[in-house]
Amino acid sequence: MSGNVPTRVMDETGTWREVQVTGEHPLTLLVNNRELITLMTLGTQPELLAVGWLRNQGFLHSPEGLLSVVAVPVAQTVVVFLRSDLSGWEKKLAKRTVTTGCGQGTVFGEWVEELQTQKVTPLQLKQSTLYGLLRNLKHCNEVYRESGAVHGCALCEEEEVLFFVEDVGRHNAADAISGHMLLNGISGAGKLFYTTGRLTSEMVIKTAQMGISALVSRAGVTRMGLDLARRLGVTLISRAGGKHFLVYHGAEHLILDIKNQKSPEPS
Amino acid sequence: MSGNVPTRVMDETGTWREVQVTGEHPLTLLVNNRELITLMTLGTQPELLAVGWLRNQGFLHSPEGLLSVVAVPVAQTVVVFLRSDLSGWEKKLAKRTVTTGCGQGTVFGEWVEELQTQKVTPLQLKQSTLYGLLRNLKHCNEVYRESGAVHGCALCEEEEVLFFVEDVGRHNAADAISGHMLLNGISGAGKLFYTTGRLTSEMVIKTAQMGISALVSRAGVTRMGLDLARRLGVTLISRAGGKHFLVYHGAEHLILDIKNQKSPEPS
Repeated sequence: MSGNVPTRVMDETGTWREVQVTGEHPLTLLVNNRELITLMTLGTQPELLAVGWLRNQGFLHSPEGLLSVVAVPVAQTVVVFLRSDLSGWEKKLAKRTVTTGCGQGTVFGEWVEELQTQKVTPLQLKQSTLYGLLRNLKHCNEVYRESGAVHGCALCEEEEVLFFVEDVGRHNAADAISGHMLLNGISGAGKLFYTTGRLTSEMVIKTAQMGISALVSRAGVTRMGLDLARRLGVTLISRAGGKHFLVYHGAEHLILDIKNQKSPEPS
Repeated sequence: MSGNVPTRVMDETGTWREVQVTGEHPLTLLVNNRELITLMTLGTQPELLAVGWLRNQGFLHSPEGLLSVVAVPVAQTVVVFLRSDLSGWEKKLAKRTVTTGCGQGTVFGEWVEELQTQKVTPLQLKQSTLYGLLRNLKHCNEVYRESGAVHGCALCEEEEVLFFVEDVGRHNAADAISGHMLLNGISGAGKLFYTTGRLTSEMVIKTAQMGISALVSRAGVTRMGLDLARRLGVTLISRAGGKHFLVYHGAEHLILDIKNQKSPEPS
């Protein structure tokens, strides 16, 4: 249920050639025998996506809360059993905010009110480390290069890419990383989150939910993404590519250790 | 409640400068006194977004169905009254598919079953016309150029851009165009839809829902987008920029009228 599909296309000269098209499949989450939602996904990490989605929507807070997660590819379904009985589910469903994200789009419940508790601990980040990380990330984005229709997200530590996921939406990729962290007991402390997509409110929230204090993207920033980053203490680095970047929040946590720099002003 | 906001950022040399950040605001749809949904939007076209969203979700089929639509910026709300009483709303809410789109993400109801009725009538499109249109579209994408965090969508006819909308997600922009068409009695026949974003299933569905038979993007195509384009008869032109494009579906409707071309194979 995953991967790319070869397809014949015609270019502007009338020449036919074979290209790769990103697979995009429905994946239904059956949680405690209830059909909760259907996500559109590349499908490479169905279990991690299911677990991370439930975590980021506030239905799962620890590995102990998860009794079982099994992907059933033939039914395009992930069957999940949680220890808790999904009480309050209808209430959460009732108030819905559709966010700006690619491939996700729905955050249930009153997350804005819950955000105060989630301020993250800032990470000191060297410019040289960031450059090294950006170099390492270049090797990751394979599906994107082939088909141009996916976003990648990465959990990183120093220069190292710990876990990289691509999906048709960056929010699926972020959820899958969140699921990976929950299942493997990985803390967000000292980590950095990278995405190929824009830094919207939802990406900042997900980053803070994972306990990660620095968010890096090669794309732009939205206003609400910036507002939330200030509120949650997430260092926001945008337009990061090669030797360039712009720090939208948390410039005091960047250590400019490459020569011929000016000193940063206090923010 | 709309537009860009100037913000001070630090670049990689430690230099501080002012950039524009895309405004991203919640917009709640209050429909027949019911709080239906909150969308995150740039906020330039709240009424059109509300009307188009209701249309594309299947709650509004004609201008007669709409009694009133009023944006209340201070409350970040659009107040809508529909002639119909939203019956079946809970049932539609119960089955949700989160799609791949930016800034939208939720299509209620059993849209897949309803799609058979929506096959569009193909449009013959000259290559020279497409190139002219791509030139004209270059002038449109202003917010994107400033902040890099929005997507643009355009309703086009021949080389002309009839209506252009930018938003934090391309699906909001598509919905606003749909609302514009409904309110102004504009048919999709003979029109072309352009988006800066990827051609996902949701974009193809929205295009067909508007009765438009050709969808053009500078970005890539997903598998389900391609499958739906084949099913709905939507000509799918991807990677369109300058003098280049790739036709993923409907190559027989492209008239290659620029010299030094090969003849297209039948698809």
